Amino acid sequence: MRMSRLLLRTLREAPSDAEAASHKLLVRAGYIRRLASGVYTYLPLGHRLLQHITAVVRAEMDAAGAQEILMPILQPHELWVQSGRAGVLATDYHGFTVEARGGTFVLGPTHEEVVTATVAAEIDSYRDLPLNVYQIQSKFRDEARPRFGLLRGREFVMKDAYSFDASQEGMKASYKLMYDAYCRVFERCGLEYSPVESLAGAIGGDVNNEFMVPSPIGEDQFASCPACGYAANIEAAQVGGGGTPGPAEELTEHHTPGRPGVKAVVEYFADRGLTSAQMLKCIALIDETGGGQQVVIALVPGDREVRVPPGLRAFEEADFAAHPELVKGYIGPMGLQSHGIRVMADPTVRESGPWTTGANKADHHVTGATLDRDFSVDEWAGLASIAAGDPCPRCGKPIELVRSVEAGHCFQLGLRYTDGDGAIPGATYVDEAGEEHPYWMGCYGIGVSRLVAVIAEAHHDDAGLAWPESVAPYQVHLLSLGAGRAPEVATAADALYAELTAA
Amino acid sequence: MRMSRLLLRTLREAPSDAEAASHKLLVRAGYIRRLASGVYTYLPLGHRLLQHITAVVRAEMDAAGAQEILMPILQPHELWVQSGRAGVLATDYHGFTVEARGGTFVLGPTHEEVVTATVAAEIDSYRDLPLNVYQIQSKFRDEARPRFGLLRGREFVMKDAYSFDASQEGMKASYKLMYDAYCRVFERCGLEYSPVESLAGAIGGDVNNEFMVPSPIGEDQFASCPACGYAANIEAAQVGGGGTPGPAEELTEHHTPGRPGVKAVVEYFADRGLTSAQMLKCIALIDETGGGQQVVIALVPGDREVRVPPGLRAFEEADFAAHPELVKGYIGPMGLQSHGIRVMADPTVRESGPWTTGANKADHHVTGATLDRDFSVDEWAGLASIAAGDPCPRCGKPIELVRSVEAGHCFQLGLRYTDGDGAIPGATYVDEAGEEHPYWMGCYGIGVSRLVAVIAEAHHDDAGLAWPESVAPYQVHLLSLGAGRAPEVATAADALYAELTAA
Repeated sequence: MRMSRLLLRTLREAPSDAEAASHKLLVRAGYIRRLASGVYTYLPLGHRLLQHITAVVRAEMDAAGAQEILMPILQPHELWVQSGRAGVLATDYHGFTVEARGGTFVLGPTHEEVVTATVAAEIDSYRDLPLNVYQIQSKFRDEARPRFGLLRGREFVMKDAYSFDASQEGMKASYKLMYDAYCRVFERCGLEYSPVESLAGAIGGDVNNEFMVPSPIGEDQFASCPACGYAANIEAAQVGGGGTPGPAEELTEHHTPGRPGVKAVVEYFADRGLTSAQMLKCIALIDETGGGQQVVIALVPGDREVRVPPGLRAFEEADFAAHPELVKGYIGPMGLQSHGIRVMADPTVRESGPWTTGANKADHHVTGATLDRDFSVDEWAGLASIAAGDPCPRCGKPIELVRSVEAGHCFQLGLRYTDGDGAIPGATYVDEAGEEHPYWMGCYGIGVSRLVAVIAEAHHDDAGLAWPESVAPYQVHLLSLGAGRAPEVATAADALYAELTAA
Repeated sequence: MRMSRLLLRTLREAPSDAEAASHKLLVRAGYIRRLASGVYTYLPLGHRLLQHITAVVRAEMDAAGAQEILMPILQPHELWVQSGRAGVLATDYHGFTVEARGGTFVLGPTHEEVVTATVAAEIDSYRDLPLNVYQIQSKFRDEARPRFGLLRGREFVMKDAYSFDASQEGMKASYKLMYDAYCRVFERCGLEYSPVESLAGAIGGDVNNEFMVPSPIGEDQFASCPACGYAANIEAAQVGGGGTPGPAEELTEHHTPGRPGVKAVVEYFADRGLTSAQMLKCIALIDETGGGQQVVIALVPGDREVRVPPGLRAFEEADFAAHPELVKGYIGPMGLQSHGIRVMADPTVRESGPWTTGANKADHHVTGATLDRDFSVDEWAGLASIAAGDPCPRCGKPIELVRSVEAGHCFQLGLRYTDGDGAIPGATYVDEAGEEHPYWMGCYGIGVSRLVAVIAEAHHDDAGLAWPESVAPYQVHLLSLGAGRAPEVATAADALYAELTAA
């Protein structure tokens, strides 16, 4: 392609809404143009980059044994009702819906339902498993705040793969193949990345890894241990080393008028040298996942924030009114089970104490509250937020928090879409003995158009974009200097151009 | 790919809604699966076919100097209002609309508006013209009756290209390049095709060609002259050889009570040997394209149907009531202009006569009506429908009508989107003298997923699908016979498989 023919207009000024370097540079250098908020056109240079990234992704998917298909963008809304995700479609996926002849369609934000229904109609036998299918396609999410150009748009290109296995071990083996393929994709794209442990969220399932690329404009953070390599999304990271228990102490009630909250109580007991880490924070939550309204009290040390687990929500004023046994600002862990309340605690609660905490009585706190003597815990879960400098849960060395963007995500979905509530009908196979079982599934996403921005963030300098060779729009930029005055320069340049094009 | 790993399940039965051979075979052989009416998934074999066709199209577009881009599927509805096509979006394109944050989007059924707005922001100078950009992308139309599998779907893959030139001659040169590239695409896909002259319809513009592939399931017909090669859509084909004028005759009024319509009048004048070809049919139409309600009378010989030109509509009862000068069943061409009525006629009206026609008076007809003596014509246009056996308008030999499907379409849009009403702002360039002019545009579409079906229609036999090598999912099918009993067969087959895969 000759520069003189290339549709390429560079701009002096970045768009006024551009905050990220990649967004500014991709627009200024003529790669992309905004059509509407979060909706972009790829001009020839941008399209070539997209094609080259696609080629890398496709090659690694094929090498890992995945088979390419193409599912529709238009998805029947009934499928989302069937899987029980009609709610999260709106809240988590910001799904676009379209009223059409014969029913409502969803513009695919992801394809778990469609792929499960599709494979269910094709695969009946253990002999046809494992199976892994993928597609590269435009996806849609009506984001409330599209930002950073291609980093968070409303229409974007994604590679999504789905694995189907006969057993949990099979699923783990398929997961490992994809995990390794993802590492190769990001390496070939010239990216530093960390596969971090993460929460599943709206997609369901258990084990999953986000592939995070450190970036100053990242909207996520992950906890990273430089000593042992532990890495986890801050929403999933466990807090290590909760301290050591202090000397045994009687449970004693104190009158603490007008002192709700950790900070006020620490001030009140300043003469006793109380620290916030010695307080037990008790947060009231409602668990509506079972259909009813189960009250849950979450316990974390007073110097931590509580990460509310998926599916639970914080108490509102009406909830406090309905539960007079829970006194706002003075909740303690003692005797809760007798009110039908479930008690969850972060593992760090086990390692420290005795605790200063609420007395379940207005204007009163207790000191000396001791686990398994004064209160008991029904369930242990990673509820405490992690902070920079916290001990690593694996090796105890200080954790760092790294600002980063998500470039890919792998999920072990297990039986989420094939068994029990929300199962897609027929998502089963028959084993050697003739017995029917649900498929074990995994799903694997890479934001292909997002990678354009992620690579641009990582590969630019003061002079502009400097792509890795693997994805650069062109390998060679041929300049003929002084061709106007010396015709032999033009002749030589043309010959070289022809030679390079043919090669 | 080993057959044992390929996601491929063949079916004994074709789907009950399948009429076309391609639809039946593509489903039975495991290429595609229906997700919803007119919405299909491409399984691995179908996806490979789609990829191979895409590669052919892309290679020919690149060779013709077009540059690949990718525009969004989400199009701001305002753009369609700007171009004056918000109406045809619903009626002609069956456009899907989506209510989103910040406004309404259209799911792109075609991209004239978006590409014009995009190029307008990039190209200001004659030095940057000509320009031709294309994309390969999913398109959406909420068809009332999706049919024939991939032949008419609601979500389909299309290649759409758009050329921008500084002059009409430039546009014609760009058109020629695309026309030739289209011929090569269809040849490489192993298709017999005819580039036929056609009407522009909702897209606008003047000259255009449809690339038709003869097929028994075709929903279109084109007129074809085996003698000289003339080919035109039946909606655009001109009727040749309108006969020769008879002897001069006085204009005479006859009382023809209760004889509206050609057939009744021919019977009435049976003793004079009147044929329907000697009658002049006068059809009342309303032209609302100018904003008002212009009455138009269309004249064709009595043995022809009238093809109502785009933008015009037939008279309804209310229109007859509002125009007492036009007597239903007895309209004649005489003196119409004095009522402000415009008279259009098919060119065949010039070649024959005198005519028997209505007298503009209930229960009366005239004989001997003669052009330019008793009535005059304001505009000549191809209004008469063509029939098999009609003389070719070019060489006079008999025309054949060929049932066929449209595989591609090229349009000379001219200034439709760049000048006057419906122009996209800024769609101009500055010439060498510093003067501003609108771009001259062309647009060019190929139904990529439709080609899968069109090729399947042309390339199958009683044993099933038989793809041309250029697009076949695989080039080689390697069978190892008796490998179970003879291990050396398996070894040899594996070696050959490895060798072929590497090649």
